[in-house]
Amino acid sequence: MTVQRILIVSGTHGNEINPIWAVKQFDREKNKFKNDIEYEYIIGNPIAYEKGCRYIDLDLNRSFREIKNLDHQNNSFYEIDRANFLVEQFGIKGNKPCQIAIDLHTTTANMGTSIVMYGRRLKDFCLAAILQNKFGLPIYLHERDKAQTGFLVEAWPCGLVIEIGAVAQNFYHPIIVNRFLIIINSLREEIDKLKNKFIELPAELIVHVHQGSIDYPRNEEGSIDGLIHPERINKDWKMIKKGDPLFLDSKGSIHKYDGDQLIWPVFIGEVAYVEKKIAMSYTKKEVIYSTNEWIKEFESL
Amino acid sequence: MTVQRILIVSGTHGNEINPIWAVKQFDREKNKFKNDIEYEYIIGNPIAYEKGCRYIDLDLNRSFREIKNLDHQNNSFYEIDRANFLVEQFGIKGNKPCQIAIDLHTTTANMGTSIVMYGRRLKDFCLAAILQNKFGLPIYLHERDKAQTGFLVEAWPCGLVIEIGAVAQNFYHPIIVNRFLIIINSLREEIDKLKNKFIELPAELIVHVHQGSIDYPRNEEGSIDGLIHPERINKDWKMIKKGDPLFLDSKGSIHKYDGDQLIWPVFIGEVAYVEKKIAMSYTKKEVIYSTNEWIKEFESL
Repeated sequence: MTVQRILIVSGTHGNEINPIWAVKQFDREKNKFKNDIEYEYIIGNPIAYEKGCRYIDLDLNRSFREIKNLDHQNNSFYEIDRANFLVEQFGIKGNKPCQIAIDLHTTTANMGTSIVMYGRRLKDFCLAAILQNKFGLPIYLHERDKAQTGFLVEAWPCGLVIEIGAVAQNFYHPIIVNRFLIIINSLREEIDKLKNKFIELPAELIVHVHQGSIDYPRNEEGSIDGLIHPERINKDWKMIKKGDPLFLDSKGSIHKYDGDQLIWPVFIGEVAYVEKKIAMSYTKKEVIYSTNEWIKEFESL
Repeated sequence: MTVQRILIVSGTHGNEINPIWAVKQFDREKNKFKNDIEYEYIIGNPIAYEKGCRYIDLDLNRSFREIKNLDHQNNSFYEIDRANFLVEQFGIKGNKPCQIAIDLHTTTANMGTSIVMYGRRLKDFCLAAILQNKFGLPIYLHERDKAQTGFLVEAWPCGLVIEIGAVAQNFYHPIIVNRFLIIINSLREEIDKLKNKFIELPAELIVHVHQGSIDYPRNEEGSIDGLIHPERINKDWKMIKKGDPLFLDSKGSIHKYDGDQLIWPVFIGEVAYVEKKIAMSYTKKEVIYSTNEWIKEFESL
């Protein structure tokens, strides 16, 4: 493995502040290197962090697209500029090229400590499998959603999102901070073992594959007219079947799941997704058997 | 009792959205009157609610001051205008005079369902005692804090804040909504009983009296350098003594409470109070014995 530099991003969303604290507490100087690997720690969206909001103009974590697709007008958005800066600085062809990017997020949904992957890159599978094997973390595999693209880690050859919740926006929670500290430490240890070939992959990886998203019930004017049902709130990763309650509207009517497939909802009630018209996303469970290709791909980094 | 009209305010802070939902679900038309009392339901800060933020220019719940103290410059703030409008419309000398104001709030701190009182008005004691007797709700008596004045309910002859948490800002939580529904219903029932003299006061009222507030630890540049300690987070209303941990700073040092008095912290880690440099407030416990004056005062409304 030729990995020389790894990027750890916190505050990609400015109001997700616990990973920023965790990285600060991690003591940058003392932990800049682990064996021969250099770690770069950066706040993704420092202006939004300063203002206590998710973003200024656009969601930074939807702003990493091919430069060629950008017209000049788009470049006037702060987050597009920032995405370009991060890639120019730390991208694989950047000034300080990083082979791996780890993007630290929090959610207001009760996701626990979880991993988010974008697409089926073998290098990502390798890293995700090791973390899942160590901690039993659930994995949300995000794919086949044309409405949502341009995620940060996709701009690097290998990368994962660590997503921890439930925690409110702009709320420092010591337990959440501690979970990030454990994950950052472990990631460094496991990557170190991978580099030194001291690691064996588990036989399989269990992922929850994104299938789609469900909006809140709405009234005739288009306003939201439904809460997450009391039986559904905080039940991320729990399977539901036809007839299970999803929402409770202002008239007291229950809106039920009416699909025939078993589904596993995630990001239930995530505050930041209201503007995206997402009350929850839903997944199906899939077992992926690991292969030696995963490690080979990772070693080629 | 001559109470004819009661004001129920939700969304005084625009990002505290659960009471707004509860009031909507309460069905305004059907519940406009209870016996001879008319209820007015209003969103305190509709523009902030629309934008998903606490306020536009100023905290509305600090903007209810004597009109005579306002200079013209201040009147350009949205919340000052809004406070004036609410008083002109629903104040005791307003177009639709209300004798009582109930202001519904949420907090990101783990306060449970609680009552906040401002000062020692006997009418407020009467109403608070009845609610505490019915539900065992803790009461935070806010007084002697010159840095914080101009609260909404102070502009009415009688009024209480209902404060429910923990819940994130801008996060609809069905359990929290349900708690508001229970409280609104009960308040109406109890006020109705008071009007019909079907009620006896409990012998005493237990209050937690505001003593002061504690800021986060800060570094040399004045930035926050400390989380609420893991042993303190979510422990609102729980007594602490000298030596108990308050904060954990980025070097891992524990900041302890070093006062000699026993104190009961509240609003621990409230997100909205970071800008007020309040990490938590602290109280002392006090028992107040009820008197017939309370009911007499209430009946004079």
